Amino acid sequence: MPSRRPAARPRATGLPPSVVAFAPLKVDAGPWTVDDVGWKGLSLLRMASAGLPVPPGFVLPVSLCQRLLDRQFGSADLARLISRAVADLDCAAVPFLGSDHPPLYSVRCSPSSPLPGLMPPLLNVGLTDAVMDQLKHQDEGDFACDCLSRLIPAYAEHVLSLAPQPFEAVPVPPESPRQSAERCRRIYLSLTGQEFAPSPLAQVISAILAALRSWDSPRARLARKRSDTALGLAVVVQAMVFGNRDSHSATGIAFSRDPSTGQNEMRGEYLPIAQGRDLFSGVHRPLPLATMRQRSPRMWACMEEMRRRLEKELGEVQDFEFTIEKGRLYLLQTRTARRSATAAIRIAVELVDDGVILADEALRRTDPTMVEAGLHPMLDANTLRRLLAKGLPASPGAGGGRIAFTAQETITRASQGERILLVRQETEAADVAAMAQCDAILTSTGGMTSHAAVVARGMGVPCVVGASELNIDAQRRRLSTPDRVFVAGDFLTIDGGTGEVYEGTIPIVPGELASEAFRLLQWADRRRRLRIYANADTPTEACLARSMGAQGIGLCRTEHMFFQDQRLAGIRRMILCEAADVAGRHRILEELLPMQRQDFIGLFESMEGQTVTIRLLDPPVHEFLPRSPGDLKSLARDLGSSVEEVTQRIEQLRETNPMLGHRGCRLCLTMPEILEMQVQAIVEAGAYCLHWGRPVRPAILLPMVMDDRELAWLVTQVRSAAEAVMRRLGVRLEYDVGTMIEVPRAALLAGRLAPMVDFFSFGTNDLTQMVCGISRDDCQGFLADYLRSGIFPADPFARLDVEGVGQLVQMAVEQGRAANPKLQCGLCGEQAGEASTIAFCEKIGLDYVSCSPYRIPAARLAAARCRL
Amino acid sequence: MPSRRPAARPRATGLPPSVVAFAPLKVDAGPWTVDDVGWKGLSLLRMASAGLPVPPGFVLPVSLCQRLLDRQFGSADLARLISRAVADLDCAAVPFLGSDHPPLYSVRCSPSSPLPGLMPPLLNVGLTDAVMDQLKHQDEGDFACDCLSRLIPAYAEHVLSLAPQPFEAVPVPPESPRQSAERCRRIYLSLTGQEFAPSPLAQVISAILAALRSWDSPRARLARKRSDTALGLAVVVQAMVFGNRDSHSATGIAFSRDPSTGQNEMRGEYLPIAQGRDLFSGVHRPLPLATMRQRSPRMWACMEEMRRRLEKELGEVQDFEFTIEKGRLYLLQTRTARRSATAAIRIAVELVDDGVILADEALRRTDPTMVEAGLHPMLDANTLRRLLAKGLPASPGAGGGRIAFTAQETITRASQGERILLVRQETEAADVAAMAQCDAILTSTGGMTSHAAVVARGMGVPCVVGASELNIDAQRRRLSTPDRVFVAGDFLTIDGGTGEVYEGTIPIVPGELASEAFRLLQWADRRRRLRIYANADTPTEACLARSMGAQGIGLCRTEHMFFQDQRLAGIRRMILCEAADVAGRHRILEELLPMQRQDFIGLFESMEGQTVTIRLLDPPVHEFLPRSPGDLKSLARDLGSSVEEVTQRIEQLRETNPMLGHRGCRLCLTMPEILEMQVQAIVEAGAYCLHWGRPVRPAILLPMVMDDRELAWLVTQVRSAAEAVMRRLGVRLEYDVGTMIEVPRAALLAGRLAPMVDFFSFGTNDLTQMVCGISRDDCQGFLADYLRSGIFPADPFARLDVEGVGQLVQMAVEQGRAANPKLQCGLCGEQAGEASTIAFCEKIGLDYVSCSPYRIPAARLAAARCRL
Repeated sequence: MPSRRPAARPRATGLPPSVVAFAPLKVDAGPWTVDDVGWKGLSLLRMASAGLPVPPGFVLPVSLCQRLLDRQFGSADLARLISRAVADLDCAAVPFLGSDHPPLYSVRCSPSSPLPGLMPPLLNVGLTDAVMDQLKHQDEGDFACDCLSRLIPAYAEHVLSLAPQPFEAVPVPPESPRQSAERCRRIYLSLTGQEFAPSPLAQVISAILAALRSWDSPRARLARKRSDTALGLAVVVQAMVFGNRDSHSATGIAFSRDPSTGQNEMRGEYLPIAQGRDLFSGVHRPLPLATMRQRSPRMWACMEEMRRRLEKELGEVQDFEFTIEKGRLYLLQTRTARRSATAAIRIAVELVDDGVILADEALRRTDPTMVEAGLHPMLDANTLRRLLAKGLPASPGAGGGRIAFTAQETITRASQGERILLVRQETEAADVAAMAQCDAILTSTGGMTSHAAVVARGMGVPCVVGASELNIDAQRRRLSTPDRVFVAGDFLTIDGGTGEVYEGTIPIVPGELASEAFRLLQWADRRRRLRIYANADTPTEACLARSMGAQGIGLCRTEHMFFQDQRLAGIRRMILCEAADVAGRHRILEELLPMQRQDFIGLFESMEGQTVTIRLLDPPVHEFLPRSPGDLKSLARDLGSSVEEVTQRIEQLRETNPMLGHRGCRLCLTMPEILEMQVQAIVEAGAYCLHWGRPVRPAILLPMVMDDRELAWLVTQVRSAAEAVMRRLGVRLEYDVGTMIEVPRAALLAGRLAPMVDFFSFGTNDLTQMVCGISRDDCQGFLADYLRSGIFPADPFARLDVEGVGQLVQMAVEQGRAANPKLQCGLCGEQAGEASTIAFCEKIGLDYVSCSPYRIPAARLAAARCRL
Repeated sequence: MPSRRPAARPRATGLPPSVVAFAPLKVDAGPWTVDDVGWKGLSLLRMASAGLPVPPGFVLPVSLCQRLLDRQFGSADLARLISRAVADLDCAAVPFLGSDHPPLYSVRCSPSSPLPGLMPPLLNVGLTDAVMDQLKHQDEGDFACDCLSRLIPAYAEHVLSLAPQPFEAVPVPPESPRQSAERCRRIYLSLTGQEFAPSPLAQVISAILAALRSWDSPRARLARKRSDTALGLAVVVQAMVFGNRDSHSATGIAFSRDPSTGQNEMRGEYLPIAQGRDLFSGVHRPLPLATMRQRSPRMWACMEEMRRRLEKELGEVQDFEFTIEKGRLYLLQTRTARRSATAAIRIAVELVDDGVILADEALRRTDPTMVEAGLHPMLDANTLRRLLAKGLPASPGAGGGRIAFTAQETITRASQGERILLVRQETEAADVAAMAQCDAILTSTGGMTSHAAVVARGMGVPCVVGASELNIDAQRRRLSTPDRVFVAGDFLTIDGGTGEVYEGTIPIVPGELASEAFRLLQWADRRRRLRIYANADTPTEACLARSMGAQGIGLCRTEHMFFQDQRLAGIRRMILCEAADVAGRHRILEELLPMQRQDFIGLFESMEGQTVTIRLLDPPVHEFLPRSPGDLKSLARDLGSSVEEVTQRIEQLRETNPMLGHRGCRLCLTMPEILEMQVQAIVEAGAYCLHWGRPVRPAILLPMVMDDRELAWLVTQVRSAAEAVMRRLGVRLEYDVGTMIEVPRAALLAGRLAPMVDFFSFGTNDLTQMVCGISRDDCQGFLADYLRSGIFPADPFARLDVEGVGQLVQMAVEQGRAANPKLQCGLCGEQAGEASTIAFCEKIGLDYVSCSPYRIPAARLAAARCRL
């Protein structure tokens, strides 16, 4: 009898070495982990513990195996231990299996996580002439011979380390099992000079030692070296059940639910009269599991019952191995099934419905990227593709179209209904209108936060950036790789989720939030504390954001509103007019005012009274200025000036480091009229909405602040401009004023800034650039080196650099709150949609994060998960 | 008798109002300040307290005057108070002055610091017919009439507020004093309808009230409003002495030492038979004080004695007013003399020699900028100048020459012996060689830390930057202002200490450290704790630095070594060769190695065993690449490539924000060969010096570090490269390894970086750019606004921003030292030479600062002063 007491956990040193027996009686799997008994051992213990039909066996735990490997445990001791364990196993197995012959054994490696290079399972161990005779006597001679001709070659190869080739010659004409067994015996004799006649116990011990030897095989060593976690090896010895016994026997694998779609139906394959690897050998074609329903309704019912119990006991969708012997079902191995993102969400939600798990557990199991993945159009998986190049996956979703090299070309052809792929070395502000109209964007330079990437993500347009293998020659309208050339009008397809670029057209299937995802996100919303806002610049984006579950707009970048043709011309004239020409600027701003007001009315109406945070004009003025000869010419005409003069003036405004130049609130200091116009537009828009009975909640956000005296001046300007409009209109509008914390100095002086404002918005794009000294437009040259060498664990523009930038954010939050307990704090950088960043925001007690609309579902989920 | 007890300090409220009497007996000036008795009152009290010959008098202190102004003190009370004080004064004055008539009085305003718009001193107050008669009786009728004709118009104007014009008509023919007095009486009668006949006491009280009224005159009010300190008014009433009494009488002003040169000789002017303002009236030409020596040796001796006593008592060079009456010398006012920087240093040192003050006091009195000012050539003060424009004073000293617009032109013509003024919109790395050869540099853009400013300061070449009124057209080789045009070869002169640009040639006088400055700096060296290092890139700069007192090189920027023709070509080829062409890079680096080694040998030898901190290559690679068509062509030839290809490759390397781009140690990660070559050159140079018995102390400095894993990698690279060289050469060289802290993230992670290095070098130029988000190359557009509006109290690139950048530096020092108690910390930004920055460095316990050679003397002084 195997010991029924739960064996002392092998980790507790000092206790005598022992094996861990399991089945047929329940054992308590509770205290065991993969580090003690390996993953296969654990799955058997857990199934046995749940009373599932597992053939009895025992595990040599990791601690014991380690002592054997270290030669701290002698072979005589091992022989004694195994002899007793096998005797106990035999006692348990015979009644459990209802067997009329001594059991055979399988010997399997059970590493703490899957590892290549280990010995494959050794089956039918313990088969001797005595057992053969007994089986023949029961008219099962063929079955016995089949087992023997499986055992001998495997034993020779793995236990004796002989070359497998002599056994592999396929005899012609085909043999009977008996002939086959005879041939194996003969070959074994010729290779070893001995008959195949070891005792069952000797076979088991030899197989165990062979399993241990494989731990040090070259492949296993290399794989262990590469692994970043410590691994251990256990060995499982288990009584055999035989899928090859008769026509009521079979072996197979099954998924307890569909791993692609999550549908609540078993999937898998099986093969009658087969054993072990036959299923994958390619000699016999396995049957789809679904056919069992017709072919063997009783077995199917057993399987259904089994998958239900498995899921109930293990709480997760399972990928399990089974064997049917003479119509009786046994489970040999199980593990949590790998599944697609869609399937994972559906399964988690349905497991909650089935009462298997709680909603919190469903949230815990669903990685936020899974929700995001489901949202974007995908390439049809069943189409042949020809990979052309690989860039960075800048904005998820698949898309494609005919190549266009300029913004103009894109707009013209897209408006004629063509699907367009905009191809640029890099995009710039002037491309924004075209970017909104194309199907997908591809650039050869730039990183995950380049202009193209940021804008595309915001718009939800699929985008691949930094595909550096591509040579883009916009002037000659050619895109080339070393061996291929494409011209404008050729068709390409990209996958913005993987960064891949393909030739030609590939069918695209639409992505959408499944109803299960909606339910999951509702549970998430109940759990989370962080508010999730959207970065949205237009009413369209705002509507999209709301449909994704945004609770407000955390960042509306007003500069994007100025890139429309009519406005851009005005902005350009304003920038180029003389510094002293205040009247000229006023005139232009008066033209822009009604358009801005309309923008804000649209946003306010879309958000229906939720917070709309509007950031005043931020970018370096140079971004608005034209570069192409045509644009220069028309601007010169507008200004009544020569192209040379205009070019010279633009040249004067060019900055060496525009990131750190004349931008943000610095523009307000030199041109306060712009601030006044924007505040006027915001307040008038708010008043308009109030007049029509629609609630509004504007928040005005000041960019690039770095000093307390500076902020004091700005807040005064904003408040007095707003006050003037309200007095004129006779309305009272509640609004907040906040400051971006995107310059390190602002974070350092947070305690002085906080009393002047209602909220802090951490702009972690710029903050990361300045704290790390990395220009996101220029980092493609070296950031890859930094990621490859492990200096950076992740792109700091995609995942917040908690050690550096995060430290500063945390300091600023603490000091800001100390100085102004009502201060609201949020994060609006690109990282705001990423799960580990959100966990950090939760940890330091931010009030909200603001990310691009398509990232909102993932953010909602992430914000809930970090509360579990 | 006036009260001899020191009057209770008027600040102590509650006590009855009282006047403060002084002379002829000593009073204790100790408890009084300018806030109690005004600056004139205090100077009289202090002289009287020292027993110097001051006519007796009393002060109406600020507190009393304030009560009078506030009408909290009635006129009857005032009359009682003054009546008693005047009576006491009379008792004291008559014996002291040896007078045979009742004293007259002067009534003077004594504000707490000089203020325009107050009543001028009112002299001869108290003159009545009775006194007139008595003087006439003593044959002093003319003197008496002179006094009366001075009193009446002044009394009418200031006490009665009458217009002064009626008195100003010059009578023809000239009158006798008697006629003059009669005329004044007549005019007074006609203006007031009364004879001039107030009693002496009434005159004094009226004069006091007039003095108080002037506190609220429009000019005084405006000046008080503009003043940033609280001001108060006291009034002094003093017995008159008469420089107009006879031919043995005179009045004058004197400096106790020469205020321009500091020479230990009195300077000043005097006028015999004169009173008060006669000295400045222009009617009589005053005599140089030196003429008194011949004209009146006895008086001169009195004066000499007096200046000695004054300096001894007041401990400072004095600017004093005196009156000689009948051969007797009286002092009427004294104050610390304004003096030139040179004079200030010489005087301070000689006062120590004279035993008047201690060395520490001399240090306290000498502003560090004074030492610096003396070092640079200056424009001859006696030449007419025509100001053309004004820019920023980027590198002190005067210089001038013929205009050259390109580096090539400068080098060619300078090598022919011409004095050249290099004129550029802005300079760039490729101009460095030319900058070293020209006499002065002028740019139209850039700020105090633009390339031109930094490099010029390092070289000690006079430089004016950001002279934005100038339009520089290098292509047409023209420099123009709105009304003038200059071409190449025209002569201009600049003053880098003031930022002024002049037409033509102006004689320039050389500047040098006077011997007194050397002695002062020796005292400073004994006092200071901070070590002063130099930023020096060449042996010439190193020698200059040592002559200025540097204790080592804190920063050698190796990039400057590469800008020589031969090396630049190699560097350019290296940058442009394919990323994978490691062999090609190695070949070029092998060519550069012997040159670098020679550079370092030169530095080590110049510094004779002092620390030489060598920073590995730092700037963005783009700085090395050519722009001019000629250079592009020759580079293309070198590379065997077309100009188009080279231009395209350069374009690919261009960065949007080079400051935050691929530079510093990031180059080491992508091209470790450069680091290896530089370390090899350093170690080989050190070994060479050791071999010849010369001590060396190299320190290797890693630029742009931002991460601990990055630093670990770099330190390993440096140490293993150095180890390899030492093993090969069989030497052992002690060297330090340090990291720049110039990226905010490095400061935030200081605790992790410190254990890996020997020292931190705070690069506050870059740190300021990143912490404040201000590119120093682009800030001219808005930094001026920030300074003007007071948001920034000073240019953060010239004076460390203690609140922001300083906070981060302090944090990093604390965390660094906690993790590595042996860590040395220094600051090597441009601010390191500025006094308040040095005081901050002292406060936070840095070990050294490193500045450009010419700033070292000032830095030595500043480092001492902050220890006093």
